[in-house]
Amino acid sequence: MNAFGRLFRVNVFGESHGASVGVNIDGVPAGLPLTAEDFLPDLERRKGGSRGTTPRKEDDLPHLKSGVFNDRTTGAPITILFENNNTRSADYEKLREFPRPGHADFVATEKYGGYEDYRGGGHFSGRLTLNLVAAGVIAKKLLGDKINVTARITEVGGIADAEAGLEAAIAAKDSVGGIVECTVDGLPIGLGEPFFDSVESLIAHAVFAIPAVKGIEFGAGFAAAKMKGLEHNDPILDKTGKTATNHAGGVVGGITNGNQLVFRIAVKPTSSTPKEQHTLNVKSGEVETFSVKGRHDLCIALRVPVVLEAVTAMVLADLMLQEQRIPRVWK
Amino acid sequence: MNAFGRLFRVNVFGESHGASVGVNIDGVPAGLPLTAEDFLPDLERRKGGSRGTTPRKEDDLPHLKSGVFNDRTTGAPITILFENNNTRSADYEKLREFPRPGHADFVATEKYGGYEDYRGGGHFSGRLTLNLVAAGVIAKKLLGDKINVTARITEVGGIADAEAGLEAAIAAKDSVGGIVECTVDGLPIGLGEPFFDSVESLIAHAVFAIPAVKGIEFGAGFAAAKMKGLEHNDPILDKTGKTATNHAGGVVGGITNGNQLVFRIAVKPTSSTPKEQHTLNVKSGEVETFSVKGRHDLCIALRVPVVLEAVTAMVLADLMLQEQRIPRVWK
Amino acid sequence: MNAFGRLFRVNVFGESHGASVGVNIDGVPAGLPLTAEDFLPDLERRKGGSRGTTPRKEDDLPHLKSGVFNDRTTGAPITILFENNNTRSADYEKLREFPRPGHADFVATEKYGGYEDYRGGGHFSGRLTLNLVAAGVIAKKLLGDKINVTARITEVGGIADAEAGLEAAIAAKDSVGGIVECTVDGLPIGLGEPFFDSVESLIAHAVFAIPAVKGIEFGAGFAAAKMKGLEHNDPILDKTGKTATNHAGGVVGGITNGNQLVFRIAVKPTSSTPKEQHTLNVKSGEVETFSVKGRHDLCIALRVPVVLEAVTAMVLADLMLQEQRIPRVWK
Amino acid sequence: MNAFGRLFRVNVFGESHGASVGVNIDGVPAGLPLTAEDFLPDLERRKGGSRGTTPRKEDDLPHLKSGVFNDRTTGAPITILFENNNTRSADYEKLREFPRPGHADFVATEKYGGYEDYRGGGHFSGRLTLNLVAAGVIAKKLLGDKINVTARITEVGGIADAEAGLEAAIAAKDSVGGIVECTVDGLPIGLGEPFFDSVESLIAHAVFAIPAVKGIEFGAGFAAAKMKGLEHNDPILDKTGKTATNHAGGVVGGITNGNQLVFRIAVKPTSSTPKEQHTLNVKSGEVETFSVKGRHDLCIALRVPVVLEAVTAMVLADLMLQEQRIPRVWK
Repeated sequence: MNAFGRLFRVNVFGESHGASVGVNIDGVPAGLPLTAEDFLPDLERRKGGSRGTTPRKEDDLPHLKSGVFNDRTTGAPITILFENNNTRSADYEKLREFPRPGHADFVATEKYGGYEDYRGGGHFSGRLTLNLVAAGVIAKKLLGDKINVTARITEVGGIADAEAGLEAAIAAKDSVGGIVECTVDGLPIGLGEPFFDSVESLIAHAVFAIPAVKGIEFGAGFAAAKMKGLEHNDPILDKTGKTATNHAGGVVGGITNGNQLVFRIAVKPTSSTPKEQHTLNVKSGEVETFSVKGRHDLCIALRVPVVLEAVTAMVLADLMLQEQRIPRVWK
Repeated sequence: MNAFGRLFRVNVFGESHGASVGVNIDGVPAGLPLTAEDFLPDLERRKGGSRGTTPRKEDDLPHLKSGVFNDRTTGAPITILFENNNTRSADYEKLREFPRPGHADFVATEKYGGYEDYRGGGHFSGRLTLNLVAAGVIAKKLLGDKINVTARITEVGGIADAEAGLEAAIAAKDSVGGIVECTVDGLPIGLGEPFFDSVESLIAHAVFAIPAVKGIEFGAGFAAAKMKGLEHNDPILDKTGKTATNHAGGVVGGITNGNQLVFRIAVKPTSSTPKEQHTLNVKSGEVETFSVKGRHDLCIALRVPVVLEAVTAMVLADLMLQEQRIPRVWK
Repeated sequence: MNAFGRLFRVNVFGESHGASVGVNIDGVPAGLPLTAEDFLPDLERRKGGSRGTTPRKEDDLPHLKSGVFNDRTTGAPITILFENNNTRSADYEKLREFPRPGHADFVATEKYGGYEDYRGGGHFSGRLTLNLVAAGVIAKKLLGDKINVTARITEVGGIADAEAGLEAAIAAKDSVGGIVECTVDGLPIGLGEPFFDSVESLIAHAVFAIPAVKGIEFGAGFAAAKMKGLEHNDPILDKTGKTATNHAGGVVGGITNGNQLVFRIAVKPTSSTPKEQHTLNVKSGEVETFSVKGRHDLCIALRVPVVLEAVTAMVLADLMLQEQRIPRVWK
Repeated sequence: MNAFGRLFRVNVFGESHGASVGVNIDGVPAGLPLTAEDFLPDLERRKGGSRGTTPRKEDDLPHLKSGVFNDRTTGAPITILFENNNTRSADYEKLREFPRPGHADFVATEKYGGYEDYRGGGHFSGRLTLNLVAAGVIAKKLLGDKINVTARITEVGGIADAEAGLEAAIAAKDSVGGIVECTVDGLPIGLGEPFFDSVESLIAHAVFAIPAVKGIEFGAGFAAAKMKGLEHNDPILDKTGKTATNHAGGVVGGITNGNQLVFRIAVKPTSSTPKEQHTLNVKSGEVETFSVKGRHDLCIALRVPVVLEAVTAMVLADLMLQEQRIPRVWK
C-alpha cells in the first residue's frame, strides 16, 4: 500500500518518467483556504538546480484535480497532479543490464516480475517526494501558525558545515550523505499513544518512506544509550510540563509532553555517484564496471529538509485531528 | 489504537497492576501447531530476575483463551492472557504527587484527564511487552526454520562488553542504556514496498512501540551519513542478489534484497534510577527531590532483545503473508 | 479480520465451546463510568431461556480484564471476557460427518483445512454476539441520553404478531425467520460520508456481521424501488432539516439528515430446525437424513434486537467520534 | 474516507463539475495486461444517452496517469482520471436556495459548512460511479475468465418488464426506482470470514457506496424471514458443496460455499424528478414549489448494473488476493 494516516490519509502515486506523479489526500477538513500558489514555496525548496543537486528542471506546478472549490477545501478528497515533461528515458533503457547498486532496480525486477516501470527509478523515484511535499503543505496549514515544523541540514559528508562538506564531495567527485534535524515547536501535550501509535512509531514510519533515509533518533537518541538514568531524565519544572533538559526529544511514553519535538535522520549518499562502480551485469552474469549516467544529486540530503517537514506535519495533523484539536470545518 | 499489522494483526491490552495483560492476534493461518509451552522459552528470556533486572517475579503463564484447538491454530483470532498476581500497588499510589521524569505519568494525566490506571505505569508498563513476545512467538513459527531473527545486546552504558557495562552501572548506583542489534537471515527478496510500506517504515513503527527505544538505524545507519557513495554502495555479485558489502542492511528501495537484514536500536537508561532525583511536585507546585521506590530494572536494554525479535518477526510474518509466502492453511 | 471501526474499534474473538468468548474495544474515551453491572440489562435481553429460544443457560458475566479502573474507562483498550461453562461438546463431535445445512460446518472445513474448532459452531457461533452486545453497551453510553437506539421484532415467520408467529412455529415443529426494525432518534445532521463511508455502508457492514442476517433496507427500502420520484422524495420543512415524510430513513447522500434513522433487517430461520433433514454424509459420500441435536433457538430473530442495537450504536459512536461530537475525555 | 479494500484498495475522488473525477487503485498485482481500451465497454454500458437516462454526454475517456507501463500493470498504484468537459454549472448555482429533496444539498451544507462544491452534486454526484466502474474493470480482469459477475435490471417502477416500467414512467412524467440482481458464478469455496469480514458485510458495504441504493438482500433475502427452517435450508448434495436449493445465495457463515452468489439491491427513484416539488427555500425560510432543471436520468437504476458488477468484483478481487488465489505477479 502507498498510503498512510488514519484521519489525514495520504496516497502517493506516479512514476518518474511516466505521465505524472501525484497525491490523493483524504480527510482534510472543509473550508481551509488553498490555492496552487500555496504549494510553490515548499516545492521550490525541494527543487534541484543549486550546487550539488540535479540539473533536471521541471516546472513542478501542482494541478488541483479535486477537493478544492473557490480556493477552499471542500471536505472531499484532494488530488494534486504533477505532470512529467522533462524526461530523458533513453538514459535508462540501456542501463537495464546493470541493476544499479543502492537503487531498487534489482529488487523491483525480482518483486514485480520485470513489469515495473524502470525508467528513472519509476515508482521508486525521489520525484515522488513532490507528493509528500504537497501533502505537507496542507498539513502545515492545518497545524496553524502556533506550531512550527522546521528541518535543517546539520551535517554533509561528516562535516558540520554543510557548505564545506559539499565542496569536499565536489572535489572528490563522489556523492555524500548527511544528517537532517527536525524540530517542532508549539505542540500541545497529549498527541500519540503508548505502543503502536506512539509519536515515534508514526513519525519513524512516515520518515522511512523518504528514499535514502537509513536512521532516525529522537532527543538524545543513540547518545542516550551511553547515558546514565539521572543524567538522561528530564526533570519537570512546572505544570505546563516544561523540562529542564530535553533528552526525551519531546515525547514520553509515546506521547508529546509539551516540550520541543526533536529528531534527527541519517541520509545515505546518493546511490548515483559520478564514480565508476562495479556490479553484476545481469546479461553476462559477470561483475563488471559501469558508470551511472543521467542527472543526479550529489548530496540528496540537501533536498530532504522540506520533505522531512512534510511527513512530520502529516503525522502531526493526523494526531491533532484525532485529539480533536483541528476542527472538521475550518474557521 | 493499540494495534498493528495488515494480515497478521496484533492488538495489545492490559495494565501492569490491573487484572491482566494480554494480546489478540488476528490473521494467523489455521493449522499451525501451538501450545502454551511454545511460549515459555521466549517468555523466560524476557523475564526479570538476573543481575540488573527487576526482582518482581511473575509466573507469566500464557492462557490461550481463543483461536487454538487440539494444539493447533484454528484460523480464528488468538487471544492470550497473562494474569497479574504479584502486584504491590501501594508502592505507586503515594507517588502520584511526583510525576516521574522519563515516565508517562505527567502526559497520561494530561491526556486521559486523570482517569488512567497509574499503578505501576498502568497501560504504559513494560509489562505489556509480554504481549509482544507472545505475538512474536507465533510470528517466528510462521517464519519457519529457514528465517532466523536474532537480537543481542551490543553495548551497555556505552561499553561494548555488556557485563562490564552493567557492573559499572551497579557500582555507580544508576541505571544505564544500551544498544541492541537485530539480524535476520534467510529472508526472501521482495518483502516491503517503496514509500509507506517500506520494510524500514514497518519495522521502525513496530520497534518504537517498545518502551524506552529512542533510535533505530538500518545497515550502516548514521555512519552512512558520513560516507561517500562509492564506499556506501553495495555491489551486487550474483543473480541471487548477494552483495559484496551490506551497508544497506538488507533493504533497498524499501524492499528486502536477499542479504542479511541488520538494524540497531538505542535504548535509553531505565527512567526509574535508584538515584535521588528532583522534579515537580504537582501538589506543592514546587520542584522537589524524591526517590523512585518499587522494583525496577537497572538496565532495561537487557530485556529488550527478545522483544525486539518479536516485533521484527511480527512485521516480517505480515509481509510474508502479503507476498503469499506463508499459506493460509499451515501444512 | 474480526475487527471493525476506525476510532471506536471492536475486535471479537472466542469459540462457543472453547475457553471463552470476548471482545477488545479500542478507542473508548477516558473517564466514561463503567461497571460490570452496566452490561447486565442488555446481556439479559440477549439471553436464551424464554419460549422459542435455546435452553442453554450461561451466566454470561462480563469480566473486565483491561481498560477500566475505579469504575471508569482509562482510555486504554477494554477487554471483556465471558467464560464458557455450560458446554456439552459431545453433542457435536458425532455430527461431524453431517455438515449441517445453513451452518458454516462445510465451508469452515474447506477454508481452515479441518483445523477449525467445530464444537457448537466454534468461532462461528451466535454465542459471539455476546461480544457485540458488550461493545454496544459501551457505544450506547457514549451516544448519551439524547440518542436512542431501539430495535424490535416486527414479524416472525411472516406474521406481524410475533407471538402468533412463534406459536405457529412451535405448532409446526420447525424454526422460523423474522424481521427486526431499528430506529435511532436524536442523531445530529452530518454523520457519514458519500461513497464508502456512507452511514448505510457502515451500518450494513456491521449488521451483516450478525449471524443469520440476509437482508437490510433503509427507510422505504425495497418498496422505494416501486415508487415514483415525487412520492419518494421527502420535502424539507424547516431549517432543522425535518422532512414531511421519511422514505430516506434518515440518510441522504450517505449522511444523516437529522430525521429518524430507520432500517429493517431480514433474519433467516434458525438453521438448526428440529425437523429431520437430509444432506451429504461426508464419510459415505451419500445424501442421508439426519437430525440436529443440541439446544437451539426456534426463532433466532427473537434474540437479534439487542444485538442489532449494539452494532448500530458501535457504528454511530465511531462516526460521532470522527465528527468530534464525543470528547476524547468524558465529562 | 473515500477508500475501500484491504489488499485491493480503491480511492475515489472528484466532483461532477470540477476539473475531473478519478480513482486510485492500490494493490493491483504487476503484469496484468491493461490499456485504456479495456475500460471502454463497461464505461459505455454506464453511459447515459438512451431512453430514460441523462442526455449529458461526456467522452468518459480514461486517462491512465500512473501504474501502467507498456500496457501492463507495474505493481504500483494505478490512477485513472476522467476529465469533465460538458459541464453546465450555471444550471445549479441558482438552485442553492432550494436544497433538493433526496439529494445531499442540505446535509452537505450542514456538514461541510457551505464549502462543498455544490455544482451538479459535486463530490456526491453519480458521475463518480465512473471511478467505480474503472476499478471494477481491473477487478474483473483479476477474477479471470472462470468467475463471472453479472448484474441485470429485474424490475423498473414495480414492473418486472423493465421496458414497460420505463414507458410507464415516461408517460407519468416522473422518475422511478428499480431492482437490480447480481449473480457471480465460478467462485471458489472459502472467501470471506465470519463476523466483520463476511462476504455479505463487505459486499453490502461496497454496494451502499453506490448512490440511490436503499436495500440489499442475499439469496432468499427478505423472503427468508417468512420461511421455515426446513424449507430454507439448502441440503448439500456432494463434496463440491453443491446445494439442492440456493436460499443462502452462495454464502454461509459469511463465507462463499461454492454455489452461485446471488443478491439483489433496491434503487430509489431518481431524486431529480421532472415533476414540480415543494421543499424549504432556505433564503425565505418557507416551503415553496420548485422544479429541478438540468439533465437527469428518469430511472437511475438502468445505469446501476455495471456499477454493481464493479463494486462486487472489487470486493471479490480483494478476497481472492487475501486467500492467495490471485498471484502477486500476474502470469
